[in-house]
Amino acid sequence: MRTSKLLISTQKEIPADAEVISHQLMIRAGLIRKLASGLYTWLPLGLKVLKKIENIIRHHMNNAGAQEVLMPIVQPGELWKESKRWEEYGDELLRLQDRHGRYFCLGPTHEEVITDLARVYLQSYKQLPKNFYQIQTKFRDEIRPRFGIMRAREFTMKDSYSFHLTDKCLDDTYNKMHDAYSKIFNEIDLDFRAVIADSGSIGGSTSHEFHVLAESGEDSIAFSNQSNYAANVELAKAMPLISKNKEKKEIKEIDTPGIKTILEICNELKVEAKQTIKTLIVHGSEECDSDLVALVLRGDHELNELKAEKIDIVAKPLKFASEEDVKKRLNCSVGFVGPINTNLPIIADHSAKNLMNFICGANVNDKHFVNANWSENIKSTITADIRQVTNGDPSPDGKGEIVIKRGIEIGHIFKLGKKYSNKMNASILDKNGKDQTLIMGCYGIGVSRLIAATIEQNHDDKGIIWPSSIAPFEVALIPINMDKSNIVKKQTEDIYKILKNKNIDVLMDDRNERPGVKFADIELIGIPHRITIGEKSISKGVIEYYSRKEDKTEEIKIEEIIKKLFQ
Amino acid sequence: MRTSKLLISTQKEIPADAEVISHQLMIRAGLIRKLASGLYTWLPLGLKVLKKIENIIRHHMNNAGAQEVLMPIVQPGELWKESKRWEEYGDELLRLQDRHGRYFCLGPTHEEVITDLARVYLQSYKQLPKNFYQIQTKFRDEIRPRFGIMRAREFTMKDSYSFHLTDKCLDDTYNKMHDAYSKIFNEIDLDFRAVIADSGSIGGSTSHEFHVLAESGEDSIAFSNQSNYAANVELAKAMPLISKNKEKKEIKEIDTPGIKTILEICNELKVEAKQTIKTLIVHGSEECDSDLVALVLRGDHELNELKAEKIDIVAKPLKFASEEDVKKRLNCSVGFVGPINTNLPIIADHSAKNLMNFICGANVNDKHFVNANWSENIKSTITADIRQVTNGDPSPDGKGEIVIKRGIEIGHIFKLGKKYSNKMNASILDKNGKDQTLIMGCYGIGVSRLIAATIEQNHDDKGIIWPSSIAPFEVALIPINMDKSNIVKKQTEDIYKILKNKNIDVLMDDRNERPGVKFADIELIGIPHRITIGEKSISKGVIEYYSRKEDKTEEIKIEEIIKKLFQ
Repeated sequence: MRTSKLLISTQKEIPADAEVISHQLMIRAGLIRKLASGLYTWLPLGLKVLKKIENIIRHHMNNAGAQEVLMPIVQPGELWKESKRWEEYGDELLRLQDRHGRYFCLGPTHEEVITDLARVYLQSYKQLPKNFYQIQTKFRDEIRPRFGIMRAREFTMKDSYSFHLTDKCLDDTYNKMHDAYSKIFNEIDLDFRAVIADSGSIGGSTSHEFHVLAESGEDSIAFSNQSNYAANVELAKAMPLISKNKEKKEIKEIDTPGIKTILEICNELKVEAKQTIKTLIVHGSEECDSDLVALVLRGDHELNELKAEKIDIVAKPLKFASEEDVKKRLNCSVGFVGPINTNLPIIADHSAKNLMNFICGANVNDKHFVNANWSENIKSTITADIRQVTNGDPSPDGKGEIVIKRGIEIGHIFKLGKKYSNKMNASILDKNGKDQTLIMGCYGIGVSRLIAATIEQNHDDKGIIWPSSIAPFEVALIPINMDKSNIVKKQTEDIYKILKNKNIDVLMDDRNERPGVKFADIELIGIPHRITIGEKSISKGVIEYYSRKEDKTEEIKIEEIIKKLFQ
Repeated sequence: MRTSKLLISTQKEIPADAEVISHQLMIRAGLIRKLASGLYTWLPLGLKVLKKIENIIRHHMNNAGAQEVLMPIVQPGELWKESKRWEEYGDELLRLQDRHGRYFCLGPTHEEVITDLARVYLQSYKQLPKNFYQIQTKFRDEIRPRFGIMRAREFTMKDSYSFHLTDKCLDDTYNKMHDAYSKIFNEIDLDFRAVIADSGSIGGSTSHEFHVLAESGEDSIAFSNQSNYAANVELAKAMPLISKNKEKKEIKEIDTPGIKTILEICNELKVEAKQTIKTLIVHGSEECDSDLVALVLRGDHELNELKAEKIDIVAKPLKFASEEDVKKRLNCSVGFVGPINTNLPIIADHSAKNLMNFICGANVNDKHFVNANWSENIKSTITADIRQVTNGDPSPDGKGEIVIKRGIEIGHIFKLGKKYSNKMNASILDKNGKDQTLIMGCYGIGVSRLIAATIEQNHDDKGIIWPSSIAPFEVALIPINMDKSNIVKKQTEDIYKILKNKNIDVLMDDRNERPGVKFADIELIGIPHRITIGEKSISKGVIEYYSRKEDKTEEIKIEEIIKKLFQ
């Protein structure tokens, strides 16, 4: 294609309402245009990216045995009443009435419609498993749409739904989808992680989120630097760390007037935080025979509230004891509480429990213990994983160390089980002619969101750096003074033809603009390869090649262009 | 693909609510499923057809220089208020409010959104012409959705909008779109006509409708059997027919008691209707100095009311004089009125005017004239085209004869002019830096409707007969007793591989069903080529080939399959 035929609408100004870099760059590069809050028009360049991603997804979904369908955007309210979500789903579900006053909604997701389809068309176990997917527009009436297409109201999603008679069969399809998603994101050349996730409100037993790693991500992910292990930081298992000390020393009570924090005690005693412990006092649950409970962590560790809440004797939701509660119960202020000489139940994190000769509050104001040891000085404790993982922790699968980074969720796979099929009576005849409720899985990719996430991960101060597989164009040809030089014109047209014949998606910038303007536009738009053609270089039999990713220019012999592009 | 992996959901029963054959066959072949009134899910087989059509359209739109965009389905009410269509558009526009109470609608069309886009991104004449298209879901809240996807509420449309500074430039793009549409429909192998049409409510000056010819069509189309001329029957020009008589005869008044119709007079006098004239009395307009006006047609012709209404002295809307009006004014009953001895203004159709020695009412009860002639017997007349064209008329372009058939509208191209750009202030700077209102064209294809129309034109009592270019599969392989015969299994897999390698979209029917069941399904689904593989035929080195279109079976050597498919 030639730029003269294309709507190029780049801009230098950062749009005032664009908070994140992907939103800024998508507007500046002319990929999308805001029509209203959370509603975007895909301009020609942006749509090319969207369509390339759709085709990559389609390819791998088909290969994984899924079948494409297309369900309506407007869905009858009755189906949502059957699943009870008509009432349960919040205001993000845009409910509406047609001219006859009948209730409909704009589909934020399609579980109801597909389950209705399955209960009609799936009759016998012989038809299973089936996995239906669609690439379709969704609408969620977000209260505060933001970040451009990252959290839009109308957006494109790939959603699929699988149907099974047994959990084993579901597992098999679930794993196939896990694989297919990995292939899709690998083909887009993304740095991503498949993260063990909480299933949240959609229900079901197991789920994985797929996250693109990017500093601007809203989620924290803990993953191994040597294996596939990855989990949402809240859910990641924290492994017990081993204490370096080998020999137990004698416990001593020391005076620590006015010293209330781990940092202060470390400075005072010239020790590392990991040689201290901190004791947090929280409320006990109804099952607990004490009103308060002590949670003990290594001084350098943070409490994971989600994990603590899962322990029977801890009140859920977690509630910290107030300064007054502590004073009243323990006769000292919060800064000096500790596990020794207390009648509170003690829950110690594994790594705290592994410490020897540690420092802790003495339950007496202005006093700490040094060289404390569990078995010697503390009667009984519960040991549990109650801490947040940290960078450098051993990975729970025994391979490598934990790295924590931020991620943007772009995909999610769930084992739904019978949540919808039970409510909507979707059953099937098994081998013995007996009715069995269908077991379901569901698998989503935020297709438009994926584009934003790709940009969050791939950009610099000049603009977007597209992976070749989804770039709006793979190569840009920049002729210098084409309007004045027949040699340049001929050489450019020749290269253009060669690339087109090789099925390379090439853009020839035939605009009557200064080279600097063209370079800036092509860099902002993020085209991976740039070839500049000028009289001077032609006379040497070369062109100037620029790699967007490497941000590097070099001279290439004209006959070696193709080799360069495919290397 | 293998049928074991595919959702095949054929049915023998004709669905009760399906009136037209395309609707019946789409349900019976398992292409679509009704979700609610006017809302359909595309099942795997149907979606394959839809996607193939979309790609054909995309290919030809891109080749014609159009750029693909994607505009939201949910559109802000403000834009529709600007164009005044928020109020003017009827109940088919589904208006809704978001959670904040702001007004939106589901887009039945996208003129407002694209004009808004153009007024922002198109700034200079240098950017013109531009032609933007999208393939997008539309929603029209039809009062009575029917005929399946032919008149659904949610449907897929290709709509495009072009922008220009001059009418000449618009003409150029309009012609390119005309060409592109012809290429698209030719590639789908449709018998279609580009029909001169009334622009109707969308406004603008020129428009063409593209109709697929099919008996079930809602429109009547007149077209030449030797040229491209085609027009809606209401708009087709009726050429003057020449009378065979050469010599004028003497007029005679004859008794015709009780004879009131053309048919009766023809039977009585043993003449053809085309030797008679009929006189219709209608009301005059305010510009007319007579309350009634006589419209004169050849006895075998029908009045075209639209044409008659366009004549100044005829009341619009057309109103026929009552029996009483006629009696009072002409002193005879309707069956005996005629153009002789009357003081009514006379408007004669060209072909009636060309008659010699004709028969007409005498304006006296129970009397007719024979051998009447215009110049001799009638004072003054206006001559005009006021008749409906008929089969066999000469084509207005001088090439061939008119054929009248029924058609289904699948595309429409308009010269919109400044209708929207005026209302929405969409202007651009011309060469002299002067603001000029944009001139627009718009071009639609009913993508999902096209599928129904294709079926209306291509079916028999066994089912659908797909054109190869959009068939869900091009070839079906039917192995006979594959589960019992390794030879059949191997031969089938071999042929399957060969076809796949040739990039042929092939379906292997590996279901454990009787051959008859498979044949019936494949014929109903309408796959163009069927290859049956059995032990007996393999031993002869042949397969059984069946062409769906020709409904013919023949034996083909295995090595000649490819040749056969591409012949």
